[in-house]
Amino acid sequence: MSTDPLVIFTPSGKRGHFPVGTPILTAARQLGVDLDSVCGGRGICSKCQITPSYGEFPKHGVTVSDDALSEWNSVEERYDRIRGLPKGRRLGCQATVQGDIVVDVPPESQVHRQVVRKAATQRDIIMAPATHLYYVEVQEPDMHEPSGDFERLKDALRVQWQIEGVTAPMNIMRRLQKTLRKGEWKITIALHKGHRDETHRILDIFPGFYEGRIYGLAIDLGSTTIAAHLCDLRNGNVIASSGVMNPQIRFGEDLMSRVSYAMMNPGGDKEMTDAVRIAINSLAQSIAIEGNIDPSQIVETVFVCNPVMHHLLLGIDPVELGQAPFALATSESLSLEAQALDLTAINENARVFILPCIAGHVGADAAAVALSEEPNKSEELVLIVDVGTNAEILLGNKTRVLACSSPTGPAFEGAQISAGQRAAPGAIERLEIDPITKEPRFKVIGSDLWSDDPAFAEATAATGITGICGSGIIEAVAEMRLAGLLDARGLIGSADQTGTARCLPEGRTHSYLIWDGTASGGPRLTVTQGDIRAIQLAKSALYAGARLLMDEMGVDTVDRVVLAGAFGAHISPRHAMVLGMIPDVPLDKVQSAGNAAGTGARIALSSIDARAQIEKTVREIIKVETAIEPRFQEHFVNANAIPHATDPFPNLNGIVTLPKVNFNAKTDGEGRRRRRG
Amino acid sequence: MSTDPLVIFTPSGKRGHFPVGTPILTAARQLGVDLDSVCGGRGICSKCQITPSYGEFPKHGVTVSDDALSEWNSVEERYDRIRGLPKGRRLGCQATVQGDIVVDVPPESQVHRQVVRKAATQRDIIMAPATHLYYVEVQEPDMHEPSGDFERLKDALRVQWQIEGVTAPMNIMRRLQKTLRKGEWKITIALHKGHRDETHRILDIFPGFYEGRIYGLAIDLGSTTIAAHLCDLRNGNVIASSGVMNPQIRFGEDLMSRVSYAMMNPGGDKEMTDAVRIAINSLAQSIAIEGNIDPSQIVETVFVCNPVMHHLLLGIDPVELGQAPFALATSESLSLEAQALDLTAINENARVFILPCIAGHVGADAAAVALSEEPNKSEELVLIVDVGTNAEILLGNKTRVLACSSPTGPAFEGAQISAGQRAAPGAIERLEIDPITKEPRFKVIGSDLWSDDPAFAEATAATGITGICGSGIIEAVAEMRLAGLLDARGLIGSADQTGTARCLPEGRTHSYLIWDGTASGGPRLTVTQGDIRAIQLAKSALYAGARLLMDEMGVDTVDRVVLAGAFGAHISPRHAMVLGMIPDVPLDKVQSAGNAAGTGARIALSSIDARAQIEKTVREIIKVETAIEPRFQEHFVNANAIPHATDPFPNLNGIVTLPKVNFNAKTDGEGRRRRRG
Repeated sequence: MSTDPLVIFTPSGKRGHFPVGTPILTAARQLGVDLDSVCGGRGICSKCQITPSYGEFPKHGVTVSDDALSEWNSVEERYDRIRGLPKGRRLGCQATVQGDIVVDVPPESQVHRQVVRKAATQRDIIMAPATHLYYVEVQEPDMHEPSGDFERLKDALRVQWQIEGVTAPMNIMRRLQKTLRKGEWKITIALHKGHRDETHRILDIFPGFYEGRIYGLAIDLGSTTIAAHLCDLRNGNVIASSGVMNPQIRFGEDLMSRVSYAMMNPGGDKEMTDAVRIAINSLAQSIAIEGNIDPSQIVETVFVCNPVMHHLLLGIDPVELGQAPFALATSESLSLEAQALDLTAINENARVFILPCIAGHVGADAAAVALSEEPNKSEELVLIVDVGTNAEILLGNKTRVLACSSPTGPAFEGAQISAGQRAAPGAIERLEIDPITKEPRFKVIGSDLWSDDPAFAEATAATGITGICGSGIIEAVAEMRLAGLLDARGLIGSADQTGTARCLPEGRTHSYLIWDGTASGGPRLTVTQGDIRAIQLAKSALYAGARLLMDEMGVDTVDRVVLAGAFGAHISPRHAMVLGMIPDVPLDKVQSAGNAAGTGARIALSSIDARAQIEKTVREIIKVETAIEPRFQEHFVNANAIPHATDPFPNLNGIVTLPKVNFNAKTDGEGRRRRRG
Repeated sequence: MSTDPLVIFTPSGKRGHFPVGTPILTAARQLGVDLDSVCGGRGICSKCQITPSYGEFPKHGVTVSDDALSEWNSVEERYDRIRGLPKGRRLGCQATVQGDIVVDVPPESQVHRQVVRKAATQRDIIMAPATHLYYVEVQEPDMHEPSGDFERLKDALRVQWQIEGVTAPMNIMRRLQKTLRKGEWKITIALHKGHRDETHRILDIFPGFYEGRIYGLAIDLGSTTIAAHLCDLRNGNVIASSGVMNPQIRFGEDLMSRVSYAMMNPGGDKEMTDAVRIAINSLAQSIAIEGNIDPSQIVETVFVCNPVMHHLLLGIDPVELGQAPFALATSESLSLEAQALDLTAINENARVFILPCIAGHVGADAAAVALSEEPNKSEELVLIVDVGTNAEILLGNKTRVLACSSPTGPAFEGAQISAGQRAAPGAIERLEIDPITKEPRFKVIGSDLWSDDPAFAEATAATGITGICGSGIIEAVAEMRLAGLLDARGLIGSADQTGTARCLPEGRTHSYLIWDGTASGGPRLTVTQGDIRAIQLAKSALYAGARLLMDEMGVDTVDRVVLAGAFGAHISPRHAMVLGMIPDVPLDKVQSAGNAAGTGARIALSSIDARAQIEKTVREIIKVETAIEPRFQEHFVNANAIPHATDPFPNLNGIVTLPKVNFNAKTDGEGRRRRRG
């Protein structure tokens, strides 16, 4: 047995014997203990702080004497004087082993501390960002051994950090000589590592030891909104979050109308590309202001998006995505210079990573959901639906994963709904209808009170009651069905049929009045027959997609359902099942994953291992194309009905129990006249 | 022994047995015979043409019957009908082995045919350009197996050409889908391979089989002139050559004055960078016109240049090169996008390769000379001097190679000489002085006649006699010394001392009249004492540099001398030795290498193996810095004299035999008056 002192690290429990005089950082490295260091053990960066423990440790079988570590040295004293070292802490690169010692590595001294934490599943992500800061000391030039400053920097990286294959863009080459001399041959570099190869690219350089931080943007580039998280690349923390409308909306509300715009208008694709890039630049600027950083500190950006947005972001004409066989120009993940996408607001050498697309209709956003939700690691058979203007659907478990997309249209987002609006203060987001009185009560965004609460009027005075958002319309339709206001085909009954004056004639059909604010200058909010039809179409598309994957998988039931997307986070699982949006599972088996695509983007920003992993996962996912699958049409038609909620598995397998309510939707003269009048 | 037919290839002599029905191209590939193919054996490109031989071949021990190859097939018939197949030729991919056969591979069917041929040494270069054309047939998209068009192109390259690791810039991604569909899923790609790694970059794409060619520029970027060769990347042929003045001359004639300009004027380096890049773009355009090609067909550019031009081309402030320790920003070879240097006149994805610099004063031009002249492979100890405004000097053999540079100034190029001019029609380039009569005779550029020929006046009527170029001034000074008009210290004698009225008083000194054309409105050309001093300084610097390397090498003699540079091509070795420019060697051991730097650039353009080779060579070259070496000054002072030519080794080791002629250069009153008048 070694007579050298024993060093035990907590919390890892790693231990080993080291000669007297070994720095704790060296011991940690030799044992593979996760102890950070940016300056390479020079007592500059203070990242390797550790907490020694003294006394008896029966559990570890050691006694640690007071002199188990070397005394404070001048480096530690100076550091403490200037910046302050927390009580009980030592610098791991300065404190050396003198006797048996137990050393705790606090979380902030761990490189790979776990940070991207998802609300739903609490899955932790180990930080392994593509871009790191490295402090190096470069040899001064020697006339007798002439070599370039850059070559000596590469030598230093090789010797001090064991990093090979380093390249630098010309703008870095241009700044290098001045930066090295300003820092007196000490320099901090932001170095980006490729996830497919061992290439290292210098993204930025700073004279001496750089005290600042570097950041990344995780961007969920949706058809309607562009949402970004500004993340600290050291620890993954979200510093700021911001979003803007996608300015491409002026070229078309949904994806296919944008593809049509590109087909019909020469240069139309470039107009849309320019528009979205300008918006992203402006978003990057505003989020940097919000995060109180310089935009040049943003050195990485990860994008998740659907295939059409993917192509329009890249400047590729999306025309092929508008017609069979829906061929993508490129499907694999992309690692690019941000400048190649005109993203000039951030660091001039910033990198862009775009997740792979799964298929022509199933994009990098679906890949991001797969990265975040990991159906390929699930024991249970899980159905994941990311509901937006298009729904991306994943079904699978650790054996295999299937994917498809389904054209739900924007109804679930409150668009194409007569009283629909985006989820914003004043929008009805929850709704219940009393099955006896047929009277509604509801909640609006911005207040926790129900509308039958005496304080409701006062609580909503500021926002008013302005419309119905996506989750509100789903609850409204489901509650109308539960209250007998709607038959299985989706027809709204008349006042006579339903016994409530809220069912009003409207043209040849009827509508249900939820709120009449006209007396005080507000809107009159109804659910019309058209609204019901729009929701029926959307939910049928969503259900048919899920059902198609279940057919392919050869199953009739799934074990759990995950609702992803910002909208998915607000859907009431019960109402979604009443409506027949999703297959039936026990209610406690329906989870919301929040913005899973955005989470996937943050994961890819935080870890190059995750980038490699999602590439592999996407290659293994089995793609199912809804557009050419006759059974999709079949399922779509079968899913049109809204079965009664008391049936145990009302919409299972497309076979429904006959509903109890059935209205004859006869046209009456009054409706016609009113329409004409 | 195999009973399969024997296939013998000439001229390689490679042979092997192959089953009946094996295509000749397949047999060639298996034997490693150099037989070209762009289309991968599809009978499209016609590059694999071969000539079968029939009858008795006692030398090879075979008899070839008439049916030793398969009959012409429809592919060959169609090809012959449309484009014409030379008589006796077959397509190697179509003709199959039926019996013993002797197959000749004509030079134009060899991929690696040798093409960069140097006038002096006839060294052949095997073509291995970084960028090749590849024809591929890509699988059409399949909705059931969705993958990007780019990914299917990569699959095709892997299967059809065994090429992996392919990337494409965004502009290619943008064009890919249209190009594939236009070519009906057949495409030709220009693919660039890195010389350090296995990265393949797509530079251009063409629908179907591309009939055109791709080209490269080899550019010798000098302080005074920029010279370019436009080369066919398939065979290395020079299609056009062109040159322009370096517009940076307006910022300073020599390198150090340009460095000073950058130091004195904020943004001055950028001005110079912009100027030279604009000139290169314009040169690329004009050379493309001259070569009758589209500038976008230029996909590669190789640069050789001195360190200051190197930095100014790259946009790096050269200030560090103006002061010890003369640190280069980067010394290794560079492989860049042409767009990074604003070279927008050529293909938008064109690549740039810049040879490595040897040291702060010894640039990529010297590296190119080393690549062209290969001192590191020489059995003899060879001294290579590339004479320009700066002289680059290499000394070595296969054991080791030393390098330095020496500030000769522009005198050798005719600058700073009273009657000096650039080498152009009308310039005196050769000169002899009769040692008895002291009368000169000379030749001018543009005529082969000596000036004492009766037809000389008529032959030079068009150009006139306009000045003295670099080689002319060297011969003039050497001949003056040989004729006793000049003493060993370099003083011109008076008319009394020399016995010729051509020695005219000029100020306190004398000058020698070569030609007086004033009667017919022409110039009066003399060699002044100032001219002698300028040449003495230049030749002393050159000699001192060579001598310093010889010291370092521990030798007193060299085996041979190579004079490189456009000017080196015109120096008379005998006069150079009389002058003491170079160490003494037998006259037949002095060779001219022409523009060796330009040749090195062409070699690097033609072969990525050569790129790897020169990187290795440069790392091994031992650098000697003249600026800080006291012995350089010593040698410089000692080399100032012009020893008499009849001494066997007049200037060896800095010790000179006392000259026979010695003038006292006294100042006379007449000279003073004339200067003041």
